[in-house]
Parts: sequence; C-alpha cells; structure tokens
Amino acid sequence: MNSLGELFRITSFGESHGVALGVVIDGCPAGIPLCVEDLLPEIARRRPGQSEVTTARKESDTPVILSGVFEGKTTGMPIAVTVHNEGQRSGDYEALRNTPRPGHADETYAAKYVHRDHRGGGRSSGRETLARVIAGVVARKILPADVQILGHAQQVGHLVAKTFEESEIERNAMRCADAQVGQEMVEFVRGLKDEGDSVGGRIEVVVRNMPPHLGEPVFDKLKARLAHAFLSVGAVTGFSYGAGFESASMRGQDYVANPANFGGILGGISSGRDLRLMASIKPTTSIGEVAKKGRHDPCIVPRVIPVLEAMVAISLADAWLIARSRAT
Amino acid sequence: MNSLGELFRITSFGESHGVALGVVIDGCPAGIPLCVEDLLPEIARRRPGQSEVTTARKESDTPVILSGVFEGKTTGMPIAVTVHNEGQRSGDYEALRNTPRPGHADETYAAKYVHRDHRGGGRSSGRETLARVIAGVVARKILPADVQILGHAQQVGHLVAKTFEESEIERNAMRCADAQVGQEMVEFVRGLKDEGDSVGGRIEVVVRNMPPHLGEPVFDKLKARLAHAFLSVGAVTGFSYGAGFESASMRGQDYVANPANFGGILGGISSGRDLRLMASIKPTTSIGEVAKKGRHDPCIVPRVIPVLEAMVAISLADAWLIARSRAT
Amino acid sequence: MNSLGELFRITSFGESHGVALGVVIDGCPAGIPLCVEDLLPEIARRRPGQSEVTTARKESDTPVILSGVFEGKTTGMPIAVTVHNEGQRSGDYEALRNTPRPGHADETYAAKYVHRDHRGGGRSSGRETLARVIAGVVARKILPADVQILGHAQQVGHLVAKTFEESEIERNAMRCADAQVGQEMVEFVRGLKDEGDSVGGRIEVVVRNMPPHLGEPVFDKLKARLAHAFLSVGAVTGFSYGAGFESASMRGQDYVANPANFGGILGGISSGRDLRLMASIKPTTSIGEVAKKGRHDPCIVPRVIPVLEAMVAISLADAWLIARSRAT
Amino acid sequence: MNSLGELFRITSFGESHGVALGVVIDGCPAGIPLCVEDLLPEIARRRPGQSEVTTARKESDTPVILSGVFEGKTTGMPIAVTVHNEGQRSGDYEALRNTPRPGHADETYAAKYVHRDHRGGGRSSGRETLARVIAGVVARKILPADVQILGHAQQVGHLVAKTFEESEIERNAMRCADAQVGQEMVEFVRGLKDEGDSVGGRIEVVVRNMPPHLGEPVFDKLKARLAHAFLSVGAVTGFSYGAGFESASMRGQDYVANPANFGGILGGISSGRDLRLMASIKPTTSIGEVAKKGRHDPCIVPRVIPVLEAMVAISLADAWLIARSRAT
Repeated sequence: MNSLGELFRITSFGESHGVALGVVIDGCPAGIPLCVEDLLPEIARRRPGQSEVTTARKESDTPVILSGVFEGKTTGMPIAVTVHNEGQRSGDYEALRNTPRPGHADETYAAKYVHRDHRGGGRSSGRETLARVIAGVVARKILPADVQILGHAQQVGHLVAKTFEESEIERNAMRCADAQVGQEMVEFVRGLKDEGDSVGGRIEVVVRNMPPHLGEPVFDKLKARLAHAFLSVGAVTGFSYGAGFESASMRGQDYVANPANFGGILGGISSGRDLRLMASIKPTTSIGEVAKKGRHDPCIVPRVIPVLEAMVAISLADAWLIARSRAT
Repeated sequence: MNSLGELFRITSFGESHGVALGVVIDGCPAGIPLCVEDLLPEIARRRPGQSEVTTARKESDTPVILSGVFEGKTTGMPIAVTVHNEGQRSGDYEALRNTPRPGHADETYAAKYVHRDHRGGGRSSGRETLARVIAGVVARKILPADVQILGHAQQVGHLVAKTFEESEIERNAMRCADAQVGQEMVEFVRGLKDEGDSVGGRIEVVVRNMPPHLGEPVFDKLKARLAHAFLSVGAVTGFSYGAGFESASMRGQDYVANPANFGGILGGISSGRDLRLMASIKPTTSIGEVAKKGRHDPCIVPRVIPVLEAMVAISLADAWLIARSRAT
Repeated sequence: MNSLGELFRITSFGESHGVALGVVIDGCPAGIPLCVEDLLPEIARRRPGQSEVTTARKESDTPVILSGVFEGKTTGMPIAVTVHNEGQRSGDYEALRNTPRPGHADETYAAKYVHRDHRGGGRSSGRETLARVIAGVVARKILPADVQILGHAQQVGHLVAKTFEESEIERNAMRCADAQVGQEMVEFVRGLKDEGDSVGGRIEVVVRNMPPHLGEPVFDKLKARLAHAFLSVGAVTGFSYGAGFESASMRGQDYVANPANFGGILGGISSGRDLRLMASIKPTTSIGEVAKKGRHDPCIVPRVIPVLEAMVAISLADAWLIARSRAT
Repeated sequence: MNSLGELFRITSFGESHGVALGVVIDGCPAGIPLCVEDLLPEIARRRPGQSEVTTARKESDTPVILSGVFEGKTTGMPIAVTVHNEGQRSGDYEALRNTPRPGHADETYAAKYVHRDHRGGGRSSGRETLARVIAGVVARKILPADVQILGHAQQVGHLVAKTFEESEIERNAMRCADAQVGQEMVEFVRGLKDEGDSVGGRIEVVVRNMPPHLGEPVFDKLKARLAHAFLSVGAVTGFSYGAGFESASMRGQDYVANPANFGGILGGISSGRDLRLMASIKPTTSIGEVAKKGRHDPCIVPRVIPVLEAMVAISLADAWLIARSRAT
C-alpha cells in the first residue's frame, strides 16, 4: 500500500495533477529541530527543469508542514507535509485518457482500477517521489549526524564513470563523480532529447560512517529492506549491494579477499563498513513526438539520485529505531 | 523480523543445529488439499548432497504438519510444519565459537546479539531456507493452478547458458536449461571443489500464466515485494526484473520496442505477461581447507533455485489475496 | 502509532491548534462515488457548539480532499483529507504550557515527549477524532449498503434510557433514544455546566444487517479489533459486547438462552446477527473555573457517538476486505 | 490473524485435538536466561483439573523449546515452543461434527471456513491459550524485574470480593483475594457443576511498579492495545481500566479527585502509577448433560487469570521495546 516502515513509517499520497501531494511521517522522535527551510534543498535537487537534461516543467514545490512540529522542533507526533500542485494543464493529457502509453503504468492501472486519474500519470507519476525526498530529510535527522548518504551517476547509456571525485557530483547536471565523463553524459543526453529518445543508467549510493547492527533476521535483512525501498521507485529495474551481479562470475577466494564485495552487510546486518548499493534505471518511456515537446526527461538518472538517497535514509532510520529497541 | 507477508504470512524459526526448524503459514484459505507428501519433492530439490556439486551432508528432512490441516485439507487455521534436525555434530563447529569466518554472518551476529548459537551458522545458516520451501508449496496451492514458476541457472562463474530447453533443467546437477553448458558447469564446479574454491552465479525465475493486477501502489509494487523476498535469501546479492541492469545502457526506443523488457510488471502491477526475474548469487564463503573437507557447496546456485521459486510463490500468494480483497 | 487497519488503513495527523488536521485513507477500492458533501453531515454531527450541552467553540471544519478522488469517484489511491484549524487562540492556553491538568494527557505527554504542543491538548485533543469521522464516511461506502450503524446515549450520569425509539435519537441534544430521559439528560447536563462540573455516560452501538464471517482467529477476533478501535478514543474507559459485564453475574443456562447475549459475535467471528457494542465514557476532566468559561463539554457523550460509529465502520470495512480475500 | 505485536510478536498455532499446539515468540532480545522449567509454573496455573471447580481433563502439557535458546539463554532469534497433545479422544466429539453447539464458535467457524477441525472446538478451543501463557513467561523477562502483574477473581456470579489480601489469591481454587468470599465461590461453583450449569465472573489485573511512557498516540494507546489483547481471549466479554464502567455515572469532580480512576493511563500512555484493568468473563456455554459428564469448567475464571496476566505481559513487553526505540 502507500506506507513503508515499522517504527519510522511514511505514508505517501497524491497524484501528479491532483490538488496536492504529501506525506505523513510517523515515528520521528520528539525534540528534533525541523522547519520548512530544511526541506527545500532536497526538494530542489529532485526538481525537474534544473538543466537542459531534465524536463522543463516548472514546479515551485513549496512544502507546508501541517503537524508534528511546534516552535521549530518535532513533537513525536505525525509530521504531515503537503505540496500543492500548480499549473496543472490537464488538457495536455486528455489524449491519454483512453490511450495507455506503452511501457507506462497507464495500462495496468486502467486494468486494475478501471477508474483512474490519467492526468500526467496520476498516482504513478514520478512526482510522487517528492513525498519520499521530504521524508528523507526527516529520516536523516534521526540517524547519527556523521552518517553520510551519497549517490552518484555511475553510468548513463554506454558512458561509465572511471574516476570518483566527490566534489564533482553536484557540479555537473548528471551528478557524475567523474567530471569528464559527466560532461560527455550531458552532451549525450542533450543529443537524445533532440532525437526524441531517452536512455537508462546506473546509480551507486554509498553510506559512510554506517552504524553497525542494523537489519533483522531473516526476512528483514537490511539488504532486503533496501531492495524493497529501491524497487518501490518506479524507474528502478534492479538492485544490488557490494559485488552485486559481478559476484555471479567471481570465485570465493576473490570474493572473500576484498571486504568491499560484502557491501557493508553480512548475514543481513550492517557490519559498520561503508554500504555500497547499486540501482539500474530504465530509460524513460516517454519518447518520440511526446518527448520532443520538452516536458519529459530524456534521462531520469540525476533526479532519481536524491530519491534513492532518501529511500536509504528512510530505511536506515527505521532499522536504527528497531535496533535501538532491543540493544543490550 | 522472522515473518513475511500481510494476508499470506509466513513465520520461520529454527537454527541449523538446534532441535528443529519450522514455519508457521498463516492466512491459507480453508479446504485446500495438503499432506506431508506434497512437501517432499520441494524439500528434496533443495536438499544438499544430491550430487557431487553440492554438500555431502545428509539431511533426511522429514516434515511434520502440526496444525491447520484436518482430514487432508487445510482449515484456514495456521499451518505449522517442523523438521527435526538430525545428527548435529556440534563438535565440528567448536572452533567457530570465538572465530567468526570472514564474509559470514558470524561477525555481525556476534557483534549484534553477543550471545549466539554459533553451530553451523545457527540461524543464519542456509538450512533456514527449508522453511521457505515448505511455505512455497502451500503458496502455490493458493495461486491459480496454471501458474508456472520456473527457475534455472543462467550463469555459473564464466559459463552462461546459451539455449533454453525447459526439459533439461532437472536433468543436470546445476539446473541449467542449456544441456551442454550445464554439463560444463558441473565439471567446472567439480574442479573448484578439489581446489577448495567456490563460485557464484545467476538465476532466472520465469512465471508463466501470470495473473494480472498483482501489486499495490506505491511501496508495495510487485517488483518491490519480489526484491524484498529475493534479498531476504542469504546468498542473493542482486535482483532485477525484465531488462534489469541491461536497461542501464538501453535507449528508450529499444526498451519500449520489446515488451519482454518490462518483465511482466508495469507501474508496479503485473500486466498478465510472463514475469522475468533475475538474482545474482555470491560464491559460498566457506573455502580453503574447510571447503575441501566436503561439507560445503562449492556452488549454491542449484540449491537456491527451489528457494527462489518458493519466495516467488509466497510473494504472489500474498499479492493474490490482497488483490482479491478489493477486486471489483 | 497513528495508523489503524490492515487493508483499509487510516493514518491520522494534526494537533488541536496546529495548521491542520487530516487523515489518509488507504485501501479504499476504486470507483466509489465520493465528494466533500458526503463528509459534511458526519462532521456536523461531531461538531461542538451544536447545543447548550456541548462546547460553544466555533469550528467551521471545512474538509478538502487532496487526493484519491477523480471526477467524483475514488481511484483506489490514498484519499487524503485535511481540515484547516481556524481561530486558534493559543494565548488562552499559555497557562497550560508548564502546568499539566490533572487527569489529562498533558502529564504523560510532557513526561514522554518532553517537547510538546501544549495548546488545547495538542495531539491528544478530542479534535483529532475529526479524522476518524471523515474516514468513517468512506468506510461505510465499502460495506454493503444495507449495513446500519447506530449509536445512542444509553446512560448519562444516573439517568438511564428505558425505551428505544430510533427516530428520537437525533431529536434531542444527548442523542438518547428515550425522548423523556433524553430531555432529563439535557436538563441535568445544563445544570452541571452552571456548576462547572461534568459527567460520564454509556453509549451503545448497534449494527443491523451485519455481514457474517468478519473477524479472524485468534488475535484479530472481531471483538478484539472493535475493542482496540473503541479504546483508541480518548474518552472511552470500557468496552463490551453482547451481555458484556452483565455476563459476569449470569448463569450459563440464561446466557445461552438469549442469543442477544452473544452480541452478534461467536468465536470472534460475526454470525450475521446484530452487533451489540457498548462503551463507557468518562466525565470530561476540564472542570471548575475552566469549565464555567464555557469552552468545554460538560458531557462528551453525544459528540462521541458519531466517533464510535465511525470506528465501527472503519473496523468493519477492514474486516470486510480481509474476509473477501480468502472467501471460498 | 494468528500473530500479535510489533517488536515483541507472538504467533500462535494448533488445535485442541491436533498434533501439537505452539507459539513462535519473535523479537525477544538476546542473552536472557530461559529454560523449559521457567515455563512450567504458568502452564500449571492455567491447567484444567487442578481442583473440583475446573475440568477434570488431564493435560500433562510438556513444552519443548525448538529454537531461539542456546546454552540456557535467548539468542535474539525466534523462540518456538510446542506442546504435544495427548490422549485425544476424538470419538467423544464425533457428535459435534455436524451439530454446532449454541453459543460456541462452532457455528461461525463452520459457516466461514466450511472445512474445519470440529474436535474439542479445534482452533477456537480454550486450549489455544496455552500458547499465550508460554509467551507471557518470556514477555515478563523483558520487562524490568520489579514489574508485578497480578490477576484475581473479583466476582463470580453474584459473589463479589470485599477484601483484598494478595497472599490469599493462590490459596483458594477461584483465585479470589478475599478468603471468605473465595470459599463461598468454590462452594457455589461446585453446586453449579452438579446442576450442569455454569457461571461468569470478573477478573481484575493490577500492574505494580509500572514503567511510565508506554503506549503510542493515537491508535496504539496502551489502553487500546490492552483491550485488544483482552478481547482476543475467547471467554472475555468486556474490558475496562480505572473507573471503567463506573465512570459512566460519575461526575468530573469525583472522577478527578481519585487518581486510581485513571487506572495508570493518561492520554493512552502509562503514567507510572499502578495499572488497573478489568475483564468480564462469560459463563461457559457447555451446560446441561454435556457439562454433568465432567469434562468442562463450570466457571472458567480461575483459569483465565494466568491467561490475562500473560496478555498483559505480552502487551507491555511490546510497548516497552517500542518506547525504548525512541526514548530520548
């Protein structure tokens, strides 16, 4: 359904072209400083129209905190945040009412729910991820202050980052840690836009200063919870941790030799070493004439990065509270 | 924790060398024929010692149904099944009491729980998957009879299946649908055993005659639930569906052109087309002198196949019941 | 936490004097007609200031549906409804910041959360029940149309209804089905107001045309879920069904002789006969000079009635969806 | 379903005349001493046939711990305990196969599940409470050592305890804290047995040295969770806390004057004062010739007492772990 988490539980609501999107964040401890300004940077990071490689749609996305915060601090009560939708041009989407787009949720939503809000993808729109980014900000505040959650574009189409320079990530429109490859990605994607085509990619999320002891046997292994969180994002087609799919061709001697292959998780529980997570992202399926009109992203990778960072924060905050409850 | 699912919910318990392993299967409708004999084939498929490529440890694994079945049919009450452990040679493992093995859960379990059952991996042992295989048999009985869940070894180390012949799968010890590559895999793994080494692999699970409408927005997308289920298996390092990680390098035009790339899921909801799921499996981390003694699998892939099939069945049975509840 | 239910799940948020109260209603099937006007009658029924026996505080309580409804019908997506708070006179409550009122949540909230919104009870205010009344309207639409959920004041202080005339319930300010006793109750409560005192009472909720098969063994017996729902309302101090506390002094022969004693539930599952539920309501703890100022209810009973009806509807809607999922 | 609790979660299984009953206790922290001997006293307390006022059926009830305990201490893994059923005389119950008993679960189970285990009530038998008593022992070990959970018979039929002498409780067969009334109760019930009749009663459970801060807003108020737990016991027809149903006739001035009226819970959160909980118990519905044969309890009250104590312990253990997770 539309909730995720046990002790730190988020409930998301809202359609792309409805009145408002929002999220209820339940289980946040009391006494944590929180204000609207805290939310803005992450909202800005996932906003479309930041550059030529993402959609030009304007979203001012002003969040309002409706509850759970008093005199600048959380109260332990549910924190509801809404963002009103502006400038819905429903007319643009009228053609989609009875014509599901190939590769979109349109088809299965129409089949399952029959009556649906078709405008701009309705509930299945990527706009829903705004709720996650907001919740991610709160989640981060629950974790120890030195925990660092860092996503970056490792691959876009045939282009793969070769170097890692953290400071470069926010300097190029693709959020690639390799300045040169990042520039190539940007140019590549710009060309696709002219062609009305799109492309997929690969995102790595690293967590530094990772707390140990997070994750529970056997069905709530940390890797299982993270995989769930990642695949709950529409654009994600795959998840792995540590050596991931490369482990398929590895020998045990080699796998064991490099602790990085374990990705910071052993037996489903965090070891305290850096988490290394990977997601594959599909090409956006809005292509052809629709895409040329300019309201769609030819490559969603840079905008998914803050969303995946948020999903990691949300998952870790929940695991953190659960681990605390039974700590010796 | 040790439960999975909402309406079809399994609770697993037991350690590798404890008194017994077991599972409580809650939410199974009444009136479904079920007996111990139904469980035996799948238990046999995951059993070690089936061939030279898996561990030689003898496990007779006789299940006992304690509840929930009366006069050969389910009653709608929780079905508890236990399998007593036999021939625990705890002495073999005494050395591990204070020496966690690299790459094993030993390390994180010792750190998190302090007091643990170290024998044979205790709770983190692959033996726990017996509970899942048993639950999978029940799950399958809830799904429409023509739903077919089929796993096979697509890769072992550097060897990748090139053809797909369903009837070959159970004919070779690796469960490879390519008879010739399957034979090569068997020989390769036999060689590794002599070296005291191990190897990873890749498993594909296909679901045919897949019911549409399964999966819920937005956090319980079918792909998210399946990713959770897959990654809850110790040996799994990655999950993907449809084009998966290949989608990272695909263009939208190509991605959309082939519906198989969607893997049977659109917007997180099953479309009715075949599900195509993939898991990467790490090499077993019991290597060197320990491995040569012969009680460990140099390649866990063939034994994980029935476990992943079971996890798919369990996930689909839960999604099936949920979808029924609100069907129009 | 702030969510209730499995398949029909509501999440409530908001403080008495915060920006807004609201509720997210998840799991409602698609295609059900729903508009703001549907919500107004129940909101009006729980509103204070309806008569001299309830608080004179003005609450216009205009709900806004933010999501989950399109072109007048539900879409199967989460339905978020907010009600903005108006005319918060926080100054009135400044005295309470550091002075918990006896018998109020002030004390435990201050101890547990330390940082809290003290204004008007904050989250623990009865105003939160607005969320439940709204969700109750939606819940009712899921149940078969002929299901009738009917609450009435059976007792207020020493006054106990002797007759039952359904049409009288909404005709007197206490919602008593006995016209004469209802009038006595109104006069009694008016007198208490002058004294700055308050009084408790007893509410019965009857469900007619009750569907059979609702409720699950063993921890989710229908009576257990209903007790949970009732006691989640701040003013409720007790719950019973059927013969309830009178069963304590009954003999088996007498108990069995009258099926009404079973209250419509056998073995935790609804039998199809009328549900008979009872709640005891404590006197409001705002008394003395505070009460005389006129912003508090001397008797909360009539306003709790629509809240308990809503809690019954919410519980039954969830049980209904769950029962459907496994129905043969 | 058959699980209860969030962080301390129990899953119960088994039928009265099936192979075995059992419980899986998940979420117990590691390192707590636990052995079979710890379970025996509480099992003995709920056992039938302890005296002439309870059923003469012999139940040896030997528990076996299958998992989660190693070298005498818990490991943090799920603790599974089974009790095999002995001497099932199914033949005795053959008459009930197609004849549901009035006032029993037989009727609703047969209607809902169609195929059921009719023997001795099957899953709806009071024998299921064995699982709860076992889980209660573990729950108590999680709570601070000085927490004291004390149940006693406050009423049986027309007989009501007038004094409270803790040491008397286990000295009379009814578990009444008033020695003289307890003796009258025993004689009264003995007479009913001869008549083939039965009687209800009222049980109070007091918790001393109660930890503060337990319970969560708004749907998981401690009183709501306790009401849920109490009403999940088949014999319970009502729940109240503090002044309970007496609050219906109280004035605010009087209610507030005596803190005992609050029952140790304010705003749904424990205040640290003693918990005062009450349950009404229905007369057993096995009456007439069936009852005279002597295998049924004419008054279930004394046997329900350890079950309700266990339900309190289970509820508090869960609330305790949850409260710890977010404690400042």
